[in-house]
Amino acid sequence: MNNDATDAQIDIVVKKIQSLGHGVNISRGTKRTVIGAIGDEQKLDPKLFDSLPGVEYSMHIVKQYKIVSRESHKQDSVIEVCGIPIGGSQIQVIGGPCSVETQDQMDSAAQHVAAAGCRLIRGGAFKPRTSPYTFQGKGKDGLGMLRQAANKYNLPIVTELMDVRMLDTFLEHDVDIIQIGTRNMQNFDLLKEVGRIDTPVILKRGISATISEWLMAAEYIAASGNHNIILCERGIRTFESAYRNVLDITCIPVLKRETHLPVIIDPSHAGGKAWMVPALSRAAIAAGADGLLVETHPNPAEAWCDADQALNPQDFKDLMVSLQGIAQTIGRSI
Amino acid sequence: MNNDATDAQIDIVVKKIQSLGHGVNISRGTKRTVIGAIGDEQKLDPKLFDSLPGVEYSMHIVKQYKIVSRESHKQDSVIEVCGIPIGGSQIQVIGGPCSVETQDQMDSAAQHVAAAGCRLIRGGAFKPRTSPYTFQGKGKDGLGMLRQAANKYNLPIVTELMDVRMLDTFLEHDVDIIQIGTRNMQNFDLLKEVGRIDTPVILKRGISATISEWLMAAEYIAASGNHNIILCERGIRTFESAYRNVLDITCIPVLKRETHLPVIIDPSHAGGKAWMVPALSRAAIAAGADGLLVETHPNPAEAWCDADQALNPQDFKDLMVSLQGIAQTIGRSI
Amino acid sequence: MNNDATDAQIDIVVKKIQSLGHGVNISRGTKRTVIGAIGDEQKLDPKLFDSLPGVEYSMHIVKQYKIVSRESHKQDSVIEVCGIPIGGSQIQVIGGPCSVETQDQMDSAAQHVAAAGCRLIRGGAFKPRTSPYTFQGKGKDGLGMLRQAANKYNLPIVTELMDVRMLDTFLEHDVDIIQIGTRNMQNFDLLKEVGRIDTPVILKRGISATISEWLMAAEYIAASGNHNIILCERGIRTFESAYRNVLDITCIPVLKRETHLPVIIDPSHAGGKAWMVPALSRAAIAAGADGLLVETHPNPAEAWCDADQALNPQDFKDLMVSLQGIAQTIGRSI
Amino acid sequence: MNNDATDAQIDIVVKKIQSLGHGVNISRGTKRTVIGAIGDEQKLDPKLFDSLPGVEYSMHIVKQYKIVSRESHKQDSVIEVCGIPIGGSQIQVIGGPCSVETQDQMDSAAQHVAAAGCRLIRGGAFKPRTSPYTFQGKGKDGLGMLRQAANKYNLPIVTELMDVRMLDTFLEHDVDIIQIGTRNMQNFDLLKEVGRIDTPVILKRGISATISEWLMAAEYIAASGNHNIILCERGIRTFESAYRNVLDITCIPVLKRETHLPVIIDPSHAGGKAWMVPALSRAAIAAGADGLLVETHPNPAEAWCDADQALNPQDFKDLMVSLQGIAQTIGRSI
Repeated sequence: MNNDATDAQIDIVVKKIQSLGHGVNISRGTKRTVIGAIGDEQKLDPKLFDSLPGVEYSMHIVKQYKIVSRESHKQDSVIEVCGIPIGGSQIQVIGGPCSVETQDQMDSAAQHVAAAGCRLIRGGAFKPRTSPYTFQGKGKDGLGMLRQAANKYNLPIVTELMDVRMLDTFLEHDVDIIQIGTRNMQNFDLLKEVGRIDTPVILKRGISATISEWLMAAEYIAASGNHNIILCERGIRTFESAYRNVLDITCIPVLKRETHLPVIIDPSHAGGKAWMVPALSRAAIAAGADGLLVETHPNPAEAWCDADQALNPQDFKDLMVSLQGIAQTIGRSI
Repeated sequence: MNNDATDAQIDIVVKKIQSLGHGVNISRGTKRTVIGAIGDEQKLDPKLFDSLPGVEYSMHIVKQYKIVSRESHKQDSVIEVCGIPIGGSQIQVIGGPCSVETQDQMDSAAQHVAAAGCRLIRGGAFKPRTSPYTFQGKGKDGLGMLRQAANKYNLPIVTELMDVRMLDTFLEHDVDIIQIGTRNMQNFDLLKEVGRIDTPVILKRGISATISEWLMAAEYIAASGNHNIILCERGIRTFESAYRNVLDITCIPVLKRETHLPVIIDPSHAGGKAWMVPALSRAAIAAGADGLLVETHPNPAEAWCDADQALNPQDFKDLMVSLQGIAQTIGRSI
Repeated sequence: MNNDATDAQIDIVVKKIQSLGHGVNISRGTKRTVIGAIGDEQKLDPKLFDSLPGVEYSMHIVKQYKIVSRESHKQDSVIEVCGIPIGGSQIQVIGGPCSVETQDQMDSAAQHVAAAGCRLIRGGAFKPRTSPYTFQGKGKDGLGMLRQAANKYNLPIVTELMDVRMLDTFLEHDVDIIQIGTRNMQNFDLLKEVGRIDTPVILKRGISATISEWLMAAEYIAASGNHNIILCERGIRTFESAYRNVLDITCIPVLKRETHLPVIIDPSHAGGKAWMVPALSRAAIAAGADGLLVETHPNPAEAWCDADQALNPQDFKDLMVSLQGIAQTIGRSI
Repeated sequence: MNNDATDAQIDIVVKKIQSLGHGVNISRGTKRTVIGAIGDEQKLDPKLFDSLPGVEYSMHIVKQYKIVSRESHKQDSVIEVCGIPIGGSQIQVIGGPCSVETQDQMDSAAQHVAAAGCRLIRGGAFKPRTSPYTFQGKGKDGLGMLRQAANKYNLPIVTELMDVRMLDTFLEHDVDIIQIGTRNMQNFDLLKEVGRIDTPVILKRGISATISEWLMAAEYIAASGNHNIILCERGIRTFESAYRNVLDITCIPVLKRETHLPVIIDPSHAGGKAWMVPALSRAAIAAGADGLLVETHPNPAEAWCDADQALNPQDFKDLMVSLQGIAQTIGRSI
């Protein structure tokens, strides 16, 4: 529908689809409203709809995923977070520690992340841990520490939501980007809930999710109305045991063909070791990624989790410099 | 602790562990209360605890998973569901359709499942579907239909819980066994919630979860106090595309060594085709599985989901007969 | 072609196919000669060939694999090795040590393998080892030891061929079944060479070979004229690290549908531990395997390779007894 | 040993190792001779050897792979092929068609490969094909065509050896680099044979080979005396079916740590589609690869095999230009 389509106009389209024997999904995003017909679409003729008031265009979409498909939306989606564009020519590196530990640690992290030239900060307050007996995150207090540290440097914050019951708390803390973690990529009730708000969502790929399953998970969010979705590859599970996961760089050109959504890479979880991060980061940018999610800690040796994979402030700064060269070579900035 | 340990006795043990600089996890199950020390256990001496009142025994457990480990509990756990034992010498086949569709369908399913000799029935009311545009289950109404159909034949019911906010509804419908599905195996908040009740839980293996991750997920439930856990293997994801998943039969002897929990197999989701189910079912029983979770539908061709993998009533009945022979050969009944 | 088709009759069919613009593959097996047309088969009409002298029947085969496909040959192939049938109702267990070490060891192995009721013996003289610095097998001397030990108990021998230049030596030692190992499943020159002789071949599945690739590898042997092929599943590589490989039991019913060739299972390499072998063996037989390839050693603790996975004589004997029960249940003998 | 160590000096070291109860492997490469002790090395003291005449240094190597390990040889190995260095600061792109088809095709390919700035050419004369009924390569004639076309532009040639019996033919055609393909990575007899000559070897990674297995395969070649080994990653097999293989970019920094051998990447087989090649190539160079093996064909639409993945001359030329930018950014040339 057109940006200024009225409810009445939407209603007419919906009724028409239903009268032709199809189900309807209405997804009202901030930029566009998409009305999907569910059923055997081949029986519907776009011409029946193109002439209706408020309709921008109608089309058959062959892919299982519709709203997120490149077919449905040719241009790259650029998602603005507090004025910072994700998915455009400027590449965004989101730095920060694995977990929020103390206010001092976060203040220090925010300081060095900003100093390195990053425009967004990450930090985990609720941590999905394999063992019930390990540190589970600082919870609400962690959100507060992250928010306070970030405000000082004017950095929008990214943090992971695990439990649907915590969504209100996230909104109260003005979380700028909600991260859905690997283990929850197919937690469909969680996807539907973050689909009902406007906050941008980083959707991490499941550890053995196919491209198709991943895009269908994004479609769950989009179908509920939130079109501000950023895909994040973070390494997949294979037979190889020499490193934690295998960073799937091929997904970058493939996703760029299949979807209009921004694609970012998490080189820290992929390799699992800080010394692998620079090579993987350079590869990701060279392959066309729109951004990175990188773990960095004021003092990695004392990190409460994933100490092995966090870059120290100097190495993080050096990485930013080396990425600028790659970005320029391919006609982008950082 | 002893079965009849008092709160005061438990408190003394907890305080002693804490005074020695360790964290504590108290898991109050229906049959036993397990107190775990968290931290560097090697510094604690079992002798310090064995003499305390109410203590049955204390030990070092090297495994990451403690309560569910065979090390901590030598005998097989037998979980009673309405008087039906799971994990003992009698093998339980849990039959039923992929999804609850109508009252008629469920009545018919319950009838043929009971007629084939099964003692429990399954049916999905909330369905985790890859696409947001496909049938998502009948929801609460489905729970009601399942309950009503099962009551007629005195069959305890098994059904999947996806959303933590639905737990009260499950309890209201007296769900006898709560299934945690593959995609939610590491939905830790959901695991913690089902850990707070006594209802037995079937914990399906994640599609690419290692044995260790799976047992750690079970440990999440156990650490919260629910020890009535049944593990269910349902096929893992590999490179092979000739069938949906690869049934990992090796996990049966391995789990029997690592844990005291019952292990059942879902041959329907593993292969993805009804004609594979008999061979996989026989293999599972021969390898030592404690039960099966099998999809069967009054009329598979008309099933609303996974039509390809449901057995029709006659094939299901034939399967039950052939399994009896295998069970007898290895000294078990069915 | 009919069993008694003459060369002249074969020649007429070949010329006809060529005159219609297709390539030809002639595979002369001991039981039948198969003439394949290569190219766009849809353009050929079976009716053009059915009436030619010597032609038994002609048909379109849609599968990529032709001679080994069930489509081309409906009945199960039964391969006779010194009068012992593989692929019929009698299940064959092929026992023996990983590697031939000494004459004493092999004599002792042959004795206990025969005593347990096996009709064939295995032993490796040429060993494919991951490291160039570990024991590479006794070579030709090993073949001699195996032959001598087996003769005493009238056991046909199975041993692995790695190097095409060793084929004559294998024939001189009257190797009864040539094993092509996992690492050589797609060593196409080796496959072509064993395709030029009549000796039955056990073709092990590559560690991450799909069903289709495996059958195509068998087709290489068949296309060269040797139709005496036995497929052997030995565990596939997955993400799981708790055991060496994952035994793919699902391949049994799938192969039974796709091909007429016998299917056997190697439970020893699959699990990698002797204690897993009984459960996996029972599962394999219950799922419909035509036989097993099991490692057993007179004294596993002293085995020169894979000591962990060999059964001792008593455990091996016990396994044979327990398998008899399973075999009877499914209407087979052992 | 020193470069100018005499046979007598080598003999003294060998005898000393043997007298201490260890086995010996002597690997005489063109640049150095490495003497390895096999057995429990911890019992040997380097001091016993360092003072012997001709000994450069002696050390314990903990890795299973010795000669190829970074531990044994700190500097990057640079392999010279007709004066062209592989493994140094200059990156080498080896271009050419999947298979040699005709002299015209090869002449044309050599022309455009040279014009794009490549210094080496590839082309397959013996093709490992999944099906026995598809084009198996032009064989010896193909070697001749490749040689003739390459000579005109002074390009060293790279081509795959599948059958150990063809090695002499390869030497007669002055093949400059012998490629060992994915399917033969653990064809140990083939590895040993190419280990007995000096011709550089490109060892492709097996489709599901671990880093450790791959380096052990290289060690087979090295242990036989050929130290001129180039490792080539070409995509690994995973669960993902949206593309042929997953290019494992992480292996680049990991191999650079573990071994001194050059590492190149084959982006064509990894993705399986020409349109993926530029992104994967840029990623590989950015991650630190020493070169690329890229399929390009004068007319991809008419290629006899893998038509989908070959770049046309213009796209290939464009790729070379874009890679120059990346190379400069990281301080290398191309």
